[in-house]
Amino acid sequence: MSQLFIVGTGPGASDLVAPRAIEAINASTDLVAYGLYLDLLGGVCHGKQHHELPLGKEIERARLALDLAASGKKTALISSGDIGIYAMATLVFELLDQQIEGRESHPEWLEVDIEVVPGISAMQAGASRTGAILGHDFCTVSLSNLLTPWETIEKRIHSAGQGDFVISFYNPVSIKRDWQLNAARDILLQYRPASTPVLIGRQLSREDEAITITTLDQLDAKDVDMFTMVSVGNSESKHIVNPVNEKEWIYTPRGYKKKLSFKNEKLGEEVTV
Amino acid sequence: MSQLFIVGTGPGASDLVAPRAIEAINASTDLVAYGLYLDLLGGVCHGKQHHELPLGKEIERARLALDLAASGKKTALISSGDIGIYAMATLVFELLDQQIEGRESHPEWLEVDIEVVPGISAMQAGASRTGAILGHDFCTVSLSNLLTPWETIEKRIHSAGQGDFVISFYNPVSIKRDWQLNAARDILLQYRPASTPVLIGRQLSREDEAITITTLDQLDAKDVDMFTMVSVGNSESKHIVNPVNEKEWIYTPRGYKKKLSFKNEKLGEEVTV
Repeated sequence: MSQLFIVGTGPGASDLVAPRAIEAINASTDLVAYGLYLDLLGGVCHGKQHHELPLGKEIERARLALDLAASGKKTALISSGDIGIYAMATLVFELLDQQIEGRESHPEWLEVDIEVVPGISAMQAGASRTGAILGHDFCTVSLSNLLTPWETIEKRIHSAGQGDFVISFYNPVSIKRDWQLNAARDILLQYRPASTPVLIGRQLSREDEAITITTLDQLDAKDVDMFTMVSVGNSESKHIVNPVNEKEWIYTPRGYKKKLSFKNEKLGEEVTV
Repeated sequence: MSQLFIVGTGPGASDLVAPRAIEAINASTDLVAYGLYLDLLGGVCHGKQHHELPLGKEIERARLALDLAASGKKTALISSGDIGIYAMATLVFELLDQQIEGRESHPEWLEVDIEVVPGISAMQAGASRTGAILGHDFCTVSLSNLLTPWETIEKRIHSAGQGDFVISFYNPVSIKRDWQLNAARDILLQYRPASTPVLIGRQLSREDEAITITTLDQLDAKDVDMFTMVSVGNSESKHIVNPVNEKEWIYTPRGYKKKLSFKNEKLGEEVTV
């Protein structure tokens, strides 16, 4: 039977990998991934055939995963984070669609049983390390203009600014793309305060994790690399410091403050909504 | 030592619970949650003191969790999904903030060591069941206007429409709120086609899971309840049907189609970017 698992393995820490992801990898004989993701997973990948393709070879990776599965090998296509958020999953279905529409010559792909396994994405790991920046309406914007025109990305950032969404930037910089994050910052400064809290999370949940809390006006592409996620609060997000243990947190409120104030005024009387 | 774990336990299936969440619950003596979440978790909750508060009592739940932890009981505050996405995490930090600002009278809260454990959210479970609807820029909008004014929510939906984001609606309906989803639909119909694919996922990853794929113009609040998440594709999302096994998928493309077409024209020659 042709089986393809499309698996998100979380941000990196083994205790944030869903058991279903481990089951899928265990059940597979062949693993297709960018090499780093298999390194992060470690032991569960042993004894399997590894097919590692570098960055930039996403189409080839998706094709190979479908080809292997169609040939009868139980295959797992692996990305870190959630494989359905900007990663490989959508590309597999795009290839399937091309086949259904007669633009590919791989009818065997249609025989493959596909299961997508969700995972915890980098922005969720970053948010959890620093509190609850994603606590209210948020959006994700990929700053990679290799596939999406910059005009489209700009429009998205303007819309996110107008809507006052918390924004998580994926693919914030790369070797060739070093200006997009600053352009995004400058757009957002038209809509929200310079003091808006920003979370910069590098190698989240991994050994060399580094977390920085800064402000929107201080956000700079030079402080960010390919292993980093960036989340920008909305106009109400707050950066707080616990004076007792100096722990810093960012949270985005949902509007409970009005209820909390009302409760205090009523001297502990419960307010039901 | 005062310890509070703020734990997201995933959409419901045990194989989608992060091991760190289980560790946190195991390490705790006291669990605070809406009762359903503890039922879903089953055995791991045995032998603990359960503090169950109903819907509508979120402030009380957060206060209780901080009080218990501050009193020396290792406590886990639990929500399903990702507890940092619309759920309890942000409220705990809001209370902490109130204390730091002198508006509460609980200095002992500041002694509590807090760890937030992320989880897989309902929208990710829904997306994975049906392919990759979250494959490109997306946003979340809560339709609960109990805490957030409807005018603000409307503005967010308009912005999401203008920006052509995939949109996941949280809290789409409740007993008292039965019109907001249809209002949201009508706003989005100003920006994207009536045929835009929509995913309706009820009780995702749970025993009585039910998934429906429909179109934006057919989306109706009467088909949705409190256990349901709704994701609306962007203007390029596609609903496909595999003619061999009749499996249906929704994916949101990232723009690889141009690369795929180019590759075919070059008769298999690789295109590097």
